[in-house]
Amino acid sequence: MSSVITPERLRSLFRPRSVALVGASNKSPFSNTAYRNLVEFDFTDRTFLVNRRGVETHGRPTVTSCAEIGQPVDVAFMMVPQAGTLDALTDAAAAGIRNAVILSSGYGEAGEAGRAAQAELVAHAESLDMVLLGPNHLGFANLVDHAPVTPILGLPHEAGSVALLSQSGASSKAMVEFATLSGADLSYMVTLGNEAMITAGHVLDFLVEDEHTKAIAIFMETIREPEVFRTAARRAAAAGKPIVVLKAGSSELSARTAAAHTGALVGDDRTIDAIFRDLGIIRVDSIEDMLITAGTAARLGRLEHSGIGVVSISGGACDILADRAEDLGARFPEFAPGTQEKLAEIMPEYGTVQNPLDVTGAAIIDPTIFTRSIEAVSADPEIGVVAVVNTLPWEREGDGKFSGQAFANAIGAGIQRASGPVVYVNQVLEPITDYTKEVMAEADVPHAIPGLRQAVVALRNLAWWSEATRDAGRGPSAEPRAVRVPESSERRGNWSEASARQLLIDAGIPVVPGTLVGSAEQAVAAAAELAGPVALKIVSPDILHKSDIGGVRLGVAGDEAVAAAYTEVVGSASRVPGAGVEGVLVSPMRSGGTELLIGVARDPQWGPILAVALGGIFVEVLGDSALSPLPVSPAQARELIESLRAAALLRGVRGTRPADLDALAEVVARIGDLALALGGDLESLEVNPLRVDGSTVEALDAVVTWTGKED
Amino acid sequence: MSSVITPERLRSLFRPRSVALVGASNKSPFSNTAYRNLVEFDFTDRTFLVNRRGVETHGRPTVTSCAEIGQPVDVAFMMVPQAGTLDALTDAAAAGIRNAVILSSGYGEAGEAGRAAQAELVAHAESLDMVLLGPNHLGFANLVDHAPVTPILGLPHEAGSVALLSQSGASSKAMVEFATLSGADLSYMVTLGNEAMITAGHVLDFLVEDEHTKAIAIFMETIREPEVFRTAARRAAAAGKPIVVLKAGSSELSARTAAAHTGALVGDDRTIDAIFRDLGIIRVDSIEDMLITAGTAARLGRLEHSGIGVVSISGGACDILADRAEDLGARFPEFAPGTQEKLAEIMPEYGTVQNPLDVTGAAIIDPTIFTRSIEAVSADPEIGVVAVVNTLPWEREGDGKFSGQAFANAIGAGIQRASGPVVYVNQVLEPITDYTKEVMAEADVPHAIPGLRQAVVALRNLAWWSEATRDAGRGPSAEPRAVRVPESSERRGNWSEASARQLLIDAGIPVVPGTLVGSAEQAVAAAAELAGPVALKIVSPDILHKSDIGGVRLGVAGDEAVAAAYTEVVGSASRVPGAGVEGVLVSPMRSGGTELLIGVARDPQWGPILAVALGGIFVEVLGDSALSPLPVSPAQARELIESLRAAALLRGVRGTRPADLDALAEVVARIGDLALALGGDLESLEVNPLRVDGSTVEALDAVVTWTGKED
Repeated sequence: MSSVITPERLRSLFRPRSVALVGASNKSPFSNTAYRNLVEFDFTDRTFLVNRRGVETHGRPTVTSCAEIGQPVDVAFMMVPQAGTLDALTDAAAAGIRNAVILSSGYGEAGEAGRAAQAELVAHAESLDMVLLGPNHLGFANLVDHAPVTPILGLPHEAGSVALLSQSGASSKAMVEFATLSGADLSYMVTLGNEAMITAGHVLDFLVEDEHTKAIAIFMETIREPEVFRTAARRAAAAGKPIVVLKAGSSELSARTAAAHTGALVGDDRTIDAIFRDLGIIRVDSIEDMLITAGTAARLGRLEHSGIGVVSISGGACDILADRAEDLGARFPEFAPGTQEKLAEIMPEYGTVQNPLDVTGAAIIDPTIFTRSIEAVSADPEIGVVAVVNTLPWEREGDGKFSGQAFANAIGAGIQRASGPVVYVNQVLEPITDYTKEVMAEADVPHAIPGLRQAVVALRNLAWWSEATRDAGRGPSAEPRAVRVPESSERRGNWSEASARQLLIDAGIPVVPGTLVGSAEQAVAAAAELAGPVALKIVSPDILHKSDIGGVRLGVAGDEAVAAAYTEVVGSASRVPGAGVEGVLVSPMRSGGTELLIGVARDPQWGPILAVALGGIFVEVLGDSALSPLPVSPAQARELIESLRAAALLRGVRGTRPADLDALAEVVARIGDLALALGGDLESLEVNPLRVDGSTVEALDAVVTWTGKED
Repeated sequence: MSSVITPERLRSLFRPRSVALVGASNKSPFSNTAYRNLVEFDFTDRTFLVNRRGVETHGRPTVTSCAEIGQPVDVAFMMVPQAGTLDALTDAAAAGIRNAVILSSGYGEAGEAGRAAQAELVAHAESLDMVLLGPNHLGFANLVDHAPVTPILGLPHEAGSVALLSQSGASSKAMVEFATLSGADLSYMVTLGNEAMITAGHVLDFLVEDEHTKAIAIFMETIREPEVFRTAARRAAAAGKPIVVLKAGSSELSARTAAAHTGALVGDDRTIDAIFRDLGIIRVDSIEDMLITAGTAARLGRLEHSGIGVVSISGGACDILADRAEDLGARFPEFAPGTQEKLAEIMPEYGTVQNPLDVTGAAIIDPTIFTRSIEAVSADPEIGVVAVVNTLPWEREGDGKFSGQAFANAIGAGIQRASGPVVYVNQVLEPITDYTKEVMAEADVPHAIPGLRQAVVALRNLAWWSEATRDAGRGPSAEPRAVRVPESSERRGNWSEASARQLLIDAGIPVVPGTLVGSAEQAVAAAAELAGPVALKIVSPDILHKSDIGGVRLGVAGDEAVAAAYTEVVGSASRVPGAGVEGVLVSPMRSGGTELLIGVARDPQWGPILAVALGGIFVEVLGDSALSPLPVSPAQARELIESLRAAALLRGVRGTRPADLDALAEVVARIGDLALALGGDLESLEVNPLRVDGSTVEALDAVVTWTGKED
């Protein structure tokens, strides 16, 4: 189905030359407000009203069927009730209309009957070679071409370069309003509804090619057709178009709520985080941050450096920004010596040259301090963007001019003279109204962010995205290495530890030595070879929890003890009736070092996900783990390891030997490569523990499970 | 100095009957805007202009000296430059003026010379029995009585019940604007400046008694006169007036910045957190949250229950709220069965009865679903406040009425019929304009919160405050128990472990057994008594880091080994030249259980602070600790322990025995009582480790240091 939903096809939907309002009716609030929009945007000359009874509607004559229109129409905007939808589609298709926007609800979101109705709807559309947006949504608005195909009122008349996609119809109006008030002017607003055919990924794909759109904001509760979404997101990154997502469903509570009202599955939220990080998608946690980040990204584009420089008239604002930068992970680097020298000449003697820079009250007397400071800071080699804090008015004060116009002008002059991007930051989250825009235009200030916290979030997000996607489009960030894997026919059933060990060894993953023995004598001989205390473990594909049944003996020393331990361990198998026993594994005991858990599990939506954690209390009590989709390069594996809260333990605290993180990362990446090479047959692969001690890295145990049953 | 700054005295300052503008001048921007405010607020008939040369100013005649006014004046509003300030004060005092507002800078914030000038200023004011606000600030505005004593423009004419205090003059205008736009209508706005005489604590004290003020918002970088502030904060809690503080300086970066521009010391931020928690002060991290929380608190007052119920037309908004509630710690309890039954009758069949409640599109057809749902949710026994999510317009849409008025009216009807507080929540952070207020008034909606994230933060904060201060005013929350302490004369110099042990034992704190021995024979005898491996430790007041010099031997068993260890340990003292040795401590070895670190250190601003942490990597690697001022009750100590991230270890994971948390908390509280009883002589007391194993709690080692040197 996806193959027909190409960007070219969607262009005819989202940039329609003409629209048929099917089911137009004076009695329908939806029809009324949708038509009101078409009037407001001067689209009525390209709008045809279809009314079954052919009565005059919205003060205009109507036709009773699309076929009567007699002109090419790009979109059938359907207001008909669910019961009439299939017939209406047939009618539209007969008139050559290939796209439909279906508002009505009662489909996938409405239980089993609804899901059946939706399947029928899609099958019908496919049979007619039609493409559907919706159902159960509120249409879309193309603000670039002034084509509003939506009953949502209050659309802005000025187009911008942020596309807004939303799975929530009910919140879209508020989002559109906030976009306008925060300076995130929109190119398109698309409500997605049930995504029966067109999903967020398809719309993304269209927007990547749309010249008017520079950044994309998405509110979503579930990601349908993950591979379409993933591919489109990679194309967006390569095209330099940031995607900013407010993905609801991070809490158990909202997972429950979402299930209640959309019927969609909400994936594990930490997996979503990992996938988004991998794709360079910016994740936010409020509507405000979504739109302000997207608006800022659309205006500023990719930052060349990740450092943020701050120039402010308020010392208090400097402090608030510095605090939030620390909390939220924005980087305010110290200024380079050259910058400091320049600023020292600009600033009054009592001022302090640092980042954030408080220009002090001296800038009230001499506003050019703003101009010159901005210029100096923007030229700093580590600064990718300068945030200039001042106030902006949202409404006219009395009859006079804005009392701060001189400062705004000085800042505007600095923006013109700056070597890199500069953004004006208002101290509080006030609206950017038409009056604000007048003040900005007079000052030659193209863009502003309202609010200090919002500025830190938006600029941190943009700096992160700029780094994360800088090399996007130059091929995959990690390429899995070839590893030797067993024949597909063997990848099923349960595997014993010995088989799992061999799988790792074949893939070039270091494993603690071990000898599979079949008698007490062989055990004694194997232990003698290892010189030192040994571990004995039962080896059986049917026994996964060896310790629980007494199938493991640790720290065994001396021939007699080894022989006795062998007997005990073999005997333990009798506690699992019918278990086949391959033998007993004799391995040297290891002590010291740090133990990790490296696992790969298959996410139903996103495929294999690698999990890295420190063993024991860290993962069990603190839940301290890091996730990533595969493949991961050794460098990415190292980043994952270093992102753990307990990573300091690997760097050697309390007298322990620092772990060789490169050697460790190499092994972790290779475990990922192995899991990837095993493909869909693999259910999960867990190396636990993977022990690291200085530059020694070895797997002490492993469990592999397959999706397929044994023949 | 503080003693003269009483609420009564401040009333004559903040509620002035008349004001003298001293240094009024047409050339001064400050004088111009300050006078413009006085005109706007109709205060000119109570304003007297003082100009040294007596020239007509602001279109009015002036006098050359306060004495010429010939009428009682409450406040001298000083616009004179620093050089003329002392004389101007003398002149004002001679005219019987007892309060002055000093705008000029160049005092405490301006290096050594500035600090000297400030000291002189204060001494002069004291000699004249005058009280000063400032210097280095922008005055204050009393909006209740329409008395603006500030050059800040854009003050609201409608008074409310939130007092705003700010140490930042430059950010105050933005804060006032946002307060108005977010519905946090102000009673007073006070900029604090250098707080040479009047500090935030004094103003708080005045506001506690002010009938117009119901909540207080403070932006501050440093807390001057902590005891005044602490006492006033306790009075505010007892009076049921929430204090909401945006305290900058939580990052190292801002500590640097603050030091640069105010010259004030910024205390350790985690101590501030602990102090605020103890005082029931709400801490926020943005200007927006500060004002929205204060506004909401002023409107709703104390909540009777901590649960928040949500009623929303948007499923997407429900999800966003649920996610943020989980992140930010707001409680959305499941509805009680009775509530669920009532809602099941109200909701359409396809709706889901849960919290947050999505009333679904059915409420578009029948808005009374809103009304009835609000009524039902507000009656739930766990719900303290109902948040109703819908949109509110900020500007008129065309000529028509607000398209959502019917829903707003239905919500307003619900508010009237509700059993408890209800707040309208707008989906995005849009301004509450005069038009918004019209819509709200028509719907009988008294208050709204703009923005979903803001609503979660504000309601969580209010719920926390409601619980934290419910018993405020009914006496101290914890009363230290009497403990036996050494004579004050002994509390000095360095103490050995043996002395520290005795201190704990005398205070009723369990300590591991130990025998101080003076010979190898005594050591052997002591070890024999203990039956099992022992620890031997050097005891000397001059050796704090015993292990580092080989002064500790652990797990020693057998007479010979004990004797040899004794000799080694005693010999180690030779590595610290001149160290006096009291002997060697012989103690039983302990294994198992969990080790904690319990410390009390003296904060220069706030006195003794108790720190609780799990030993080892938890505190060293993860920085996992909890702080509180003293005293702490056993119940509070238990809360501290349970707030640790690693607290699960004490509850018994991985097969360990659960710790008796009540027994542990009792000991921790007693350590706090001991530290408090030792008073200012104590520099720090550290019990490390305190071992807990089931119900056994005992100190294994302790270090005590005193502020005083040995005689």
